[in-house]
Amino acid sequence: VAELELIAAIERASRARDPRVVRWLGDDAAVVRARPVAVTSIDTIAEGVHFELATHSPADVGHKALAAALSDIAAMGAEPGEAYVSLALPKGFETDSALELMRSLEALAERTGTTVAGGDVIRAPALVIAIAVTGWAEDESELVGRDAATSGQLVGVTGSLGGSGAGLLILEGSEATLPLDRERALVQRHRRPQPLLEAGRALAAAGATAMIDLSDGLATDGRHVGERSGVELRLRLADLPVAPGVEEVARASGTSGADLAATAGDDYELLVVAPPDRISELEEAASFAGTSLTWIGQVVPGRGSVLLGPGGEPAALRGYEHP
Amino acid sequence: VAELELIAAIERASRARDPRVVRWLGDDAAVVRARPVAVTSIDTIAEGVHFELATHSPADVGHKALAAALSDIAAMGAEPGEAYVSLALPKGFETDSALELMRSLEALAERTGTTVAGGDVIRAPALVIAIAVTGWAEDESELVGRDAATSGQLVGVTGSLGGSGAGLLILEGSEATLPLDRERALVQRHRRPQPLLEAGRALAAAGATAMIDLSDGLATDGRHVGERSGVELRLRLADLPVAPGVEEVARASGTSGADLAATAGDDYELLVVAPPDRISELEEAASFAGTSLTWIGQVVPGRGSVLLGPGGEPAALRGYEHP
Repeated sequence: VAELELIAAIERASRARDPRVVRWLGDDAAVVRARPVAVTSIDTIAEGVHFELATHSPADVGHKALAAALSDIAAMGAEPGEAYVSLALPKGFETDSALELMRSLEALAERTGTTVAGGDVIRAPALVIAIAVTGWAEDESELVGRDAATSGQLVGVTGSLGGSGAGLLILEGSEATLPLDRERALVQRHRRPQPLLEAGRALAAAGATAMIDLSDGLATDGRHVGERSGVELRLRLADLPVAPGVEEVARASGTSGADLAATAGDDYELLVVAPPDRISELEEAASFAGTSLTWIGQVVPGRGSVLLGPGGEPAALRGYEHP
Repeated sequence: VAELELIAAIERASRARDPRVVRWLGDDAAVVRARPVAVTSIDTIAEGVHFELATHSPADVGHKALAAALSDIAAMGAEPGEAYVSLALPKGFETDSALELMRSLEALAERTGTTVAGGDVIRAPALVIAIAVTGWAEDESELVGRDAATSGQLVGVTGSLGGSGAGLLILEGSEATLPLDRERALVQRHRRPQPLLEAGRALAAAGATAMIDLSDGLATDGRHVGERSGVELRLRLADLPVAPGVEEVARASGTSGADLAATAGDDYELLVVAPPDRISELEEAASFAGTSLTWIGQVVPGRGSVLLGPGGEPAALRGYEHP
């Protein structure tokens, strides 16, 4: 019965934002008038793995779950459409907390033009949130995958890296001493990642040949692009746009800002591959979408990706200790 | 790393069944050439709530998770398209088990013409499977919701009821004595529910005005239709098509076959509402799709649904004890 009450409350809190959504909450399935190409991804986060309720409010969790799912749509260059939310709620996570989670998720949905068109709420032994998001495009050619990076192209990243990882280390009790507002900014970066939907569409339109969102970290996500494209991404560690404050936090944990930026993940920036003659269009597109683009490497024959040290040698990334 | 291995194995086991699926596993999101109307639902099952690994093999779990999600598409009268699978796997549920789960899920996908086009695999404290399924239709008018039942129409159900609930009681150690093959059939009914995709489409085309799949049980699901349509469904307990063997199992647990059939749920039969002049077309459609249709009630002014005893009075449903 608690589930039914919660579902009713969710339905009251939700609004269809697009007239193409014909049926939604309250039916067996949502019915949406399609545009020519559907772009769909599913993403899951669990307590104790992707977040801790000791450091994340239910509102943080709802935001993060939808942001992670929307980030995949951003990396394809699609427009967000509908989200379908599965909530597995443990005992002790009561209706108030679930509503706080859903309201925060709804706020991000509203801000990004996404309609929460369906959901499922169950009791379960652990807090697990799975979100499927469908985005749309007018034509397949508008979209950017992971498989079309070619030798001679350049590799860029949006914004800055390492902020989320440093924010997590701070939440875990890092001994770094930072100005309070900088510390807060890093923690916020970890708790409230932003899906780069506008940047993704703008970069796709400006000629990006491959994109991926940096959820697992540059080292891992760069490899995905290299493997799928059948090329090697050679990335210069010294050129990574390390977020302010990350260096200090990294050093307090026995590593460097660049190493943390390359491995910590959860920044949800976009890695972008493009031909050299598109550099200025892409930089303009990023700037127009409110972010920046830093060129950090190039594509060569091979397979996978490698991070290079100052002399051009493959770098041994230093691990870091969680306090 | 176990996740990456598992994902690689899943990709090897999967095949795109529809040329409309342009990009799928291995990209940030699946890309599907749309038909005019998308029909999407998300469904979640968790260990300890919807199944126990003591009585369900990983193959049973994979089948059940996809069957439950596809059943919502069936109840809309849509054609199945793509499934997006989120697996949250606890420690102790190893790669072999996860692969067994996915192979069984793939087998049902293949049988129903569904493509597993995306997924996410994470470690989590409990086994939770969420599946979003998208079906397609050429036009909204082909689809059937829950909200168009009107006074004077009739209520039918496909197939037989109570089998899944009786199968669960047997798995839990019911003291009923049944022939072994009948016992096995009831247990199979519980472990391997079948989504009625063909029946759903045939009944929609034959003039059904409202449908819902019986996942929570006739008493609850009938109420959903009544509330959404603003009418009352009056259902005759004595006319329910109780599956063979259910009466014996129900009696051993202190209730009746009809009471169990009305409340146990998980049968995934379809409840169908239609005008009286469509009876013969609907019966033919059900028969053509390999099932039957039993008329169990009528729609009257009011709100919700009620189960009636032999004298036409509201029946007090008897609960039953799980052994």
